[in-house]
Amino acid sequence: MNKNDFCKRPPMGWNSYDYFDTTVTEKDVRENAEYIAANLKEYGWEYVVIDIEWYSYDAGTQQPRYQYIPFGRSEMDEYGRLLPCPERFPSSIGGKGFAPLAEYIHSLGLKFGIHIMRGIPRLAAHLHMPILGSTQSANEVAEPNNTCFWNPDMYGLRPNEPGSQEYYNSIFALYAEWGVDFIKCDDICRMDNPSAKEEIRMLHNAIENCGRPIVLSLSPGPAIPTQAWWYEEYANMWRITDDLWDTWELVHAMFERCEVWQNHVSEGCFPDCDMLPFGRLGKGFGHEWNCRLTKEEQKTLMALWCIFRSPLMLGACPVLLDEDTLSLLTNRRLIAMQQEGFGAKQRERDASGALWISENSVTGSCYVACFNFREETAERSLKLKKLFPGRSFTEATDIFPDNTQSVGETLSVTMGAHGPAVYELR
Amino acid sequence: MNKNDFCKRPPMGWNSYDYFDTTVTEKDVRENAEYIAANLKEYGWEYVVIDIEWYSYDAGTQQPRYQYIPFGRSEMDEYGRLLPCPERFPSSIGGKGFAPLAEYIHSLGLKFGIHIMRGIPRLAAHLHMPILGSTQSANEVAEPNNTCFWNPDMYGLRPNEPGSQEYYNSIFALYAEWGVDFIKCDDICRMDNPSAKEEIRMLHNAIENCGRPIVLSLSPGPAIPTQAWWYEEYANMWRITDDLWDTWELVHAMFERCEVWQNHVSEGCFPDCDMLPFGRLGKGFGHEWNCRLTKEEQKTLMALWCIFRSPLMLGACPVLLDEDTLSLLTNRRLIAMQQEGFGAKQRERDASGALWISENSVTGSCYVACFNFREETAERSLKLKKLFPGRSFTEATDIFPDNTQSVGETLSVTMGAHGPAVYELR
Amino acid sequence: MNKNDFCKRPPMGWNSYDYFDTTVTEKDVRENAEYIAANLKEYGWEYVVIDIEWYSYDAGTQQPRYQYIPFGRSEMDEYGRLLPCPERFPSSIGGKGFAPLAEYIHSLGLKFGIHIMRGIPRLAAHLHMPILGSTQSANEVAEPNNTCFWNPDMYGLRPNEPGSQEYYNSIFALYAEWGVDFIKCDDICRMDNPSAKEEIRMLHNAIENCGRPIVLSLSPGPAIPTQAWWYEEYANMWRITDDLWDTWELVHAMFERCEVWQNHVSEGCFPDCDMLPFGRLGKGFGHEWNCRLTKEEQKTLMALWCIFRSPLMLGACPVLLDEDTLSLLTNRRLIAMQQEGFGAKQRERDASGALWISENSVTGSCYVACFNFREETAERSLKLKKLFPGRSFTEATDIFPDNTQSVGETLSVTMGAHGPAVYELR
Amino acid sequence: MNKNDFCKRPPMGWNSYDYFDTTVTEKDVRENAEYIAANLKEYGWEYVVIDIEWYSYDAGTQQPRYQYIPFGRSEMDEYGRLLPCPERFPSSIGGKGFAPLAEYIHSLGLKFGIHIMRGIPRLAAHLHMPILGSTQSANEVAEPNNTCFWNPDMYGLRPNEPGSQEYYNSIFALYAEWGVDFIKCDDICRMDNPSAKEEIRMLHNAIENCGRPIVLSLSPGPAIPTQAWWYEEYANMWRITDDLWDTWELVHAMFERCEVWQNHVSEGCFPDCDMLPFGRLGKGFGHEWNCRLTKEEQKTLMALWCIFRSPLMLGACPVLLDEDTLSLLTNRRLIAMQQEGFGAKQRERDASGALWISENSVTGSCYVACFNFREETAERSLKLKKLFPGRSFTEATDIFPDNTQSVGETLSVTMGAHGPAVYELR
Repeated sequence: MNKNDFCKRPPMGWNSYDYFDTTVTEKDVRENAEYIAANLKEYGWEYVVIDIEWYSYDAGTQQPRYQYIPFGRSEMDEYGRLLPCPERFPSSIGGKGFAPLAEYIHSLGLKFGIHIMRGIPRLAAHLHMPILGSTQSANEVAEPNNTCFWNPDMYGLRPNEPGSQEYYNSIFALYAEWGVDFIKCDDICRMDNPSAKEEIRMLHNAIENCGRPIVLSLSPGPAIPTQAWWYEEYANMWRITDDLWDTWELVHAMFERCEVWQNHVSEGCFPDCDMLPFGRLGKGFGHEWNCRLTKEEQKTLMALWCIFRSPLMLGACPVLLDEDTLSLLTNRRLIAMQQEGFGAKQRERDASGALWISENSVTGSCYVACFNFREETAERSLKLKKLFPGRSFTEATDIFPDNTQSVGETLSVTMGAHGPAVYELR
Repeated sequence: MNKNDFCKRPPMGWNSYDYFDTTVTEKDVRENAEYIAANLKEYGWEYVVIDIEWYSYDAGTQQPRYQYIPFGRSEMDEYGRLLPCPERFPSSIGGKGFAPLAEYIHSLGLKFGIHIMRGIPRLAAHLHMPILGSTQSANEVAEPNNTCFWNPDMYGLRPNEPGSQEYYNSIFALYAEWGVDFIKCDDICRMDNPSAKEEIRMLHNAIENCGRPIVLSLSPGPAIPTQAWWYEEYANMWRITDDLWDTWELVHAMFERCEVWQNHVSEGCFPDCDMLPFGRLGKGFGHEWNCRLTKEEQKTLMALWCIFRSPLMLGACPVLLDEDTLSLLTNRRLIAMQQEGFGAKQRERDASGALWISENSVTGSCYVACFNFREETAERSLKLKKLFPGRSFTEATDIFPDNTQSVGETLSVTMGAHGPAVYELR
Repeated sequence: MNKNDFCKRPPMGWNSYDYFDTTVTEKDVRENAEYIAANLKEYGWEYVVIDIEWYSYDAGTQQPRYQYIPFGRSEMDEYGRLLPCPERFPSSIGGKGFAPLAEYIHSLGLKFGIHIMRGIPRLAAHLHMPILGSTQSANEVAEPNNTCFWNPDMYGLRPNEPGSQEYYNSIFALYAEWGVDFIKCDDICRMDNPSAKEEIRMLHNAIENCGRPIVLSLSPGPAIPTQAWWYEEYANMWRITDDLWDTWELVHAMFERCEVWQNHVSEGCFPDCDMLPFGRLGKGFGHEWNCRLTKEEQKTLMALWCIFRSPLMLGACPVLLDEDTLSLLTNRRLIAMQQEGFGAKQRERDASGALWISENSVTGSCYVACFNFREETAERSLKLKKLFPGRSFTEATDIFPDNTQSVGETLSVTMGAHGPAVYELR
Repeated sequence: MNKNDFCKRPPMGWNSYDYFDTTVTEKDVRENAEYIAANLKEYGWEYVVIDIEWYSYDAGTQQPRYQYIPFGRSEMDEYGRLLPCPERFPSSIGGKGFAPLAEYIHSLGLKFGIHIMRGIPRLAAHLHMPILGSTQSANEVAEPNNTCFWNPDMYGLRPNEPGSQEYYNSIFALYAEWGVDFIKCDDICRMDNPSAKEEIRMLHNAIENCGRPIVLSLSPGPAIPTQAWWYEEYANMWRITDDLWDTWELVHAMFERCEVWQNHVSEGCFPDCDMLPFGRLGKGFGHEWNCRLTKEEQKTLMALWCIFRSPLMLGACPVLLDEDTLSLLTNRRLIAMQQEGFGAKQRERDASGALWISENSVTGSCYVACFNFREETAERSLKLKKLFPGRSFTEATDIFPDNTQSVGETLSVTMGAHGPAVYELR
């Protein structure tokens, strides 16, 4: 089993976090999965991912003081493995875990993913719980000073301690049994803690050991550029930014991140720009709102994510999607650029804007994406020969709104305030 | 009650750490206290301090892997207050805590001190234990990401949370009941954690609340020089270095520390150079040894500590003291310089040595201490007028070995390799 | 000659920088000195200090692009010693330097000071100029990578190179000849450059060598707290902040600085809070304005500077002083607190305000200064016994506006927005 | 002109620094170039590069105190352009610069390169010299605080100042006239100074403006990984390490550097591991020695440089090369791996060793390079299917010493202490 073989193209799907935070329930997941199957699946959207603290009983009840309640009550089996909270995921009652829900997601033609925190539950360590497949117990593998600075649930594992790999094996065996296709592991990607690097390899090993092709996604960013080779060796996607929300400043900051990571995109290896904070957001955080990015800014975000080939994980509430957002998510040319692109390269970036190019590995057409960082409309004339030495084009298709025109040596583009111009060249 | 009134001069005593580490027992404490009462008390040595993890059942059993065993078993009351491990301190059986031992120490004419870690036991938080005098419980005042990086026992307290001050009040009320005279609080002095600064004030408040004059000593160092006023306002002594052991490099490094803190010594306020690592050391760490400092280096250490007015806490095993060390600890002139000095000031420091001066507040005599950092004997001729403008002297007494000679404008001194020359001038 | 003997109290005077920047002329200096002699001298103001680049021909002509013109033209003698620009200081013509101007200032009963930059003029090094009193030349003592990051005029000197001390000796010999009483040396205090620490000692040595009691003032801050002893050994005043201008944020930030340095004030040793940015400001910078601090904020500034015992160097244009400012500068009680105070100590500081106390070494009266950081009026009731244990008072004089009332155990004070309440207690 | 077109493969050549430091003369260059033409050219070695301070009269005369004499004498034309010192390069007399020497190098079938420092000579700025092609003069484009911390010759240029680009244009016009093929620009690659990034682009522009295909090499390292795209856009090679000398520690440290940069090697873009410190070294530094690396360590160095595709710049004195070194430099298989390789990738690295793979773009054969970091012989058995999924091999050729054997699924290799095993697989 080669992790690059079962994730050749950047994953697409939906993640519950941006709308539900820690509060998503089985009912929410089913409803939104059904919507996705009906409306988005045909464009490539396939993963349904339940984000953080699905094991918690009281998650979300102490907002805004605590996003994650210290010393809160969690569902856990006798081996210190977290289970879905049965009050929130009724189909898990009777020790079934996520198996029934995964089965339903699969029945819709979709794939099923869950979020985990790096490490082992703190309470398991304090109670000296046994580890399945090891004679060591939780207190022996947990590091008491290896904690996540923003979530209180876990202790990190000691990398070279007998029992540590076995603990990860034991949870992945369970996930494989349940039918999980995608794991987003948190508190690991930016290596805040010295053991995180080795824990990434342990997760990879646990996937190989469980035998099921589970996509491994690492959070939160920013990933460490000088560790690029490690992510490429052991993970399928890794966040290159801290949480991205719906502000222009955060979208704009991604251009620098993509510049840094542009040479690290390949089959099975996808630097991740984070979820798309579109549509309705924030219900689980206690204050619901509509995406604050302008339409042009949303197009800029999608254009950058797609030419760079970031995974596309929708952060909205799918059943509440508006028409405009839906049409952005179902732009087939954009998605083809993301799914079939290669060789994406930033050619310019300064205070006024940026320029990226790439190529379609299936059709051979080329892409040019121009971005306008200013708050007013901008025009540019692009010299295609300089950008694509050795290539010549006769047609240019504006991806927004999908108009084709003839083209010679120069392409003139117009961009709205904070907006993009993206063309496919043939 | 004013904390500067009950600690006007730098404390002197013995601390169990350097010899016993976490393993000291009631029998050890009694034996050594008896020795101190018989041999050292008359020179000013009075505090007997039990250092770290007196509440632990298995402390010291996993050396050298763990100095502090993760998730180890501790003795604790129903309010999350740690108690002496009854197996190690039999007189504490029946909920008597340290009261019987304190009473015995007092009966010897000595004072009794204990070590505590900043915060509340982790297990108390995970088990949601009640706090005496508060309606809040341990999980509400403990900060799950506020941990000591070298000891796994506690969580830090939330400074502005109701219940936090009450928890500290509850433990100091217990210590006052026991008859504790001295608290060495650890994981707090160098403010590794953002709450540490406020926790210092909370400790001070807890002492004022308990009504007993308990000396407050803060560890580990280095204390933060720009927070000097805070230590001066709320504590009696604060460590200005990380743990000091018996190597020349560490002794030598103290000259820079003392230089930084020389203006911050006053009644009730004593920057602390750490324990004297003399005599026998290390039994509790699993490998016992004799102090590796040469005699000259030991004299340098004592001379610097004394002219600077550091507290003097002996780190040896008193009952095993050799004659030479004993004579160093009972040099009355040295101790007078520490107890009665004022205005200590470094006048020179470079690669070859250092020079300090101070004055005796009782007798009016002056002190000059010359230090030799080189590995060979050195001589110097000191111009007394330049060092003490407006003063003139007729007699100079060499504190080692206590010989008096007549003196004029110049004092010629000889120092051994890494050794001092200390003179009292009248 | 002992540097602490000729500067026992914190210096007071006027500095040309805040109003004239680099452009001050002989005429400006004479006019303002006359004003000071007539109106401020009797209150203690005595130093008249010419600030930066008095040697420059074109200083100020490229504002706002350059405050200090790169590679600009300077007046210099054949030994690489800078001389006053004769176009700006006509009395210096004929090689007389500042001697005639100093003589005039002295004739007014005032003292004369000038600003210098650490190091040797760059051009002197590039031209291999000789050093008076040494066989080495400028290129041999200048360090080519030892430059000031904000001023382009000089290279730092190599501390242990023959000729370096001689260069400093040669300029101080000249200054002594001119009759200079005060040197403000810049680019040295915060030790941006590794040689700065040694250059402070070299300046001190040069003063001792020249035989004239010249007060040594070091800039810019913030001075390094852990080097306090060095400043105390070799300088009379040292800036504890970067340039202070007329904004509340900068005034407010000084409370933390004073807290850090409060134990380092003594005869001949004065941590310096920087000039008083009062009255008219900025002409030489190309945009003149009135001090933007409110009256209350100006009082806060003066009260802190005075209780802390910072030197008081007026930064205004004296001849343009308004009545209000003048009355603040001539408050005899405030100035007595600065000149005669001792033992100043911050007792509280938090987001709402601060509280300082000190004592008058001549009269024995005590001072309490309460500061209000909020933007609205505040009241406080002070327990005098807690603040001054062992003391009792019958009278309290409000220093603003100098009203005396009787007082018991408690003093009630009212402070305006950002304002102080300062009382003298007897 | 596209910079990636005239440098498709990693450059190979010789650089005068490691042997001659600043002291190389025309005679030395000619002799060694002749040797290279006769003995190394056929294997691909072609650049002859004169390193630092060829313009200096007294370079090397103050060793060991100064490698670069402060304020030393240089040859310069009336536009502030440095010229070869005529005493050291006699053919340059009469204003001919390096043209005659370049012509001779070309006549040998080799290419000619020189070293430059970023910026403009300091003296040019202090003397306000004119800039060819601009109305601005040197003092207007030089930044007085923008200096190289290890060399005293230059000031950096202000990126957006008129005249700055013109100054670089003026020197590259001269170099093009002389026939220079390769520029190694120093004090620029690791962007110690904020203007360095823009100065890289200015150098690139100056090359485009001069019209001659000059390879641009940037020093010193380590290059900044997050600026990878900038180097790729504007330079041909950039140093990824500080100076590499002949110690195992430095060679070993390169594995981490290569790991970081492995995805940034492409046509025209070569991260540079620095010169090969082989054979005789150090004459110009004042103490000559033989390469201190063992034979195995030298093989490791060559194997890593070649599989990674670093440029190969020999740092020895060619005419003094010994047989062993010569045979290492003329190993055709190794050089083919460097010249024709692609897709080099580190697959493992830990305390015991590292493993790299790559492929030959011309022949399709694969390479595996195993490295042994331990000080004793090591053996490994490599699973070829795991390393090269989808490929199968029948023959394996050991590159040292070029023995071919048949191979199946596993390849067993033996490595000496600190030595490599490199195999070509077909």
